[in-house]
Amino acid sequence: MILDGKKIAEEIKADIAARVDAIVAAGHRPPHLVAVLVGHDGGSESYVMSKAAACERCGFRSTVMRLDESITQRDLLDKILALNSADDVDGFIVQLPLPAHLNEREVLEAIDPRKDVDGFHPVNVGRLTLGLPCFKPATPLGITMLLERAGIDTRGKHCVILGRSNIVGKPLAIMLLQKGRPGDCTVTVCHSATPDVAAEARRADILVAAMGRPGSVTADMVKPGAVVIDVGTTRVPDATRERGWRLRGDVDFDNVAPLCSHITPVPGGVGPMTIAALMYNTLQAYSV
Amino acid sequence: MILDGKKIAEEIKADIAARVDAIVAAGHRPPHLVAVLVGHDGGSESYVMSKAAACERCGFRSTVMRLDESITQRDLLDKILALNSADDVDGFIVQLPLPAHLNEREVLEAIDPRKDVDGFHPVNVGRLTLGLPCFKPATPLGITMLLERAGIDTRGKHCVILGRSNIVGKPLAIMLLQKGRPGDCTVTVCHSATPDVAAEARRADILVAAMGRPGSVTADMVKPGAVVIDVGTTRVPDATRERGWRLRGDVDFDNVAPLCSHITPVPGGVGPMTIAALMYNTLQAYSV
Repeated sequence: MILDGKKIAEEIKADIAARVDAIVAAGHRPPHLVAVLVGHDGGSESYVMSKAAACERCGFRSTVMRLDESITQRDLLDKILALNSADDVDGFIVQLPLPAHLNEREVLEAIDPRKDVDGFHPVNVGRLTLGLPCFKPATPLGITMLLERAGIDTRGKHCVILGRSNIVGKPLAIMLLQKGRPGDCTVTVCHSATPDVAAEARRADILVAAMGRPGSVTADMVKPGAVVIDVGTTRVPDATRERGWRLRGDVDFDNVAPLCSHITPVPGGVGPMTIAALMYNTLQAYSV
Repeated sequence: MILDGKKIAEEIKADIAARVDAIVAAGHRPPHLVAVLVGHDGGSESYVMSKAAACERCGFRSTVMRLDESITQRDLLDKILALNSADDVDGFIVQLPLPAHLNEREVLEAIDPRKDVDGFHPVNVGRLTLGLPCFKPATPLGITMLLERAGIDTRGKHCVILGRSNIVGKPLAIMLLQKGRPGDCTVTVCHSATPDVAAEARRADILVAAMGRPGSVTADMVKPGAVVIDVGTTRVPDATRERGWRLRGDVDFDNVAPLCSHITPVPGGVGPMTIAALMYNTLQAYSV
């Protein structure tokens, strides 16, 4: 069964829009998300535009703050501090990657954790790890929302996560091993130093592929009946498309799908859920 | 082979003492650790005394700040703030558990992360998760120091951790799955919702028992040749001891030890390493 992330994301955004309607009807301003975009990276442009469109769908106000790619670290930090203290900004994100001359880590740590709707600030990551209320990073939050909305119980399941990134693998591992729902999974994290990834993957009730290696999860790595979540979104050349590329996931979809109980497609799986999760966080930032 | 935590902890403290001697010989004051002890819990008294003795061994100044068990939250927070701004205090710990009327979480978050040598503040936990420099919590740090000093390479090993606490299971999982050494383990975390803990445990090259259930890791749960780390320290009744109890680990030592390549005893394994790790963190707090 295909886990239709696009459809479930639409449902979540519709729920949020209904809440925003009620907020506005009660005479309050809508939530406001700002996206900071430095330079003109093609991928970043399109991600930011998708986020702005999702804001519109949710009834949020959204602003794209475009900054020249030659901006200095000091000037960028000043922009962050201004956003931190702007009363009419509930949450903001700095679209990554930043140009190479900028210190990404310092920029992320300058964001007020209460407006850090991407959940990348150490305070939010620490609170996530400790099981305290926080902004959860959007991709793992989107994945757990997808599992919940699809009625997939995680308790007691063995979840194997391929990849240990700060934005997907590690936070998702933490979220799924915590007490409660979704959670209570036995969690295994594999990565480039794992000698036999296939053997680990085959033990998964829930298999999450987040390595960024297109098509690398093959049918022999999947236990029949498993739930397969594909986080990969690599642009691969495709001469049949006008733009010359298409998105490809980490899973060999055509051969794996027949084996699974559930699988996310690429595109239309985790990607839209990530954006829905960002909308969810923005509404939280407004409410708090 | 028994991993003699007591002996390795002595070596670490001797190394630290040599560095402190050089610091003092150069005309500087020694590092200073303060332990805040609220009330008169027997276990807490003895832990704090062990830490004070370790400070003396390392050449640190140490102070035990004894506070009445009836102290209010506000007064305790004021003590924390005073320690945060005391120039002659490099690091401090608040011995847990606190009396039930106090809010432990609020107290821990009031500690300046730069003096948080227990590594419990969300900023330190977040930085740990993100792989950034931080104070690592003492028990997992003690375990990784023990593995390093014993020459046990972790890269590519499968580490199975039994227990998902905030002070052992979760941070140790994060430390062992990070890039680098010690690290680069495939890590599995099991807990009370894991249906077949024994089956998971048997797959471990490095098995860490941190559930606090004495003797529950039995020989059938251990792969021959595994490294077994026993974090359990439960007081069990023992009529043959004058004090009426002894410490018992989570591992059925007598039956498991013959199977292992390495095993930590209880007492004398992880316990002394935890204190050595606290000393290491205190020296770091001084140097930074």
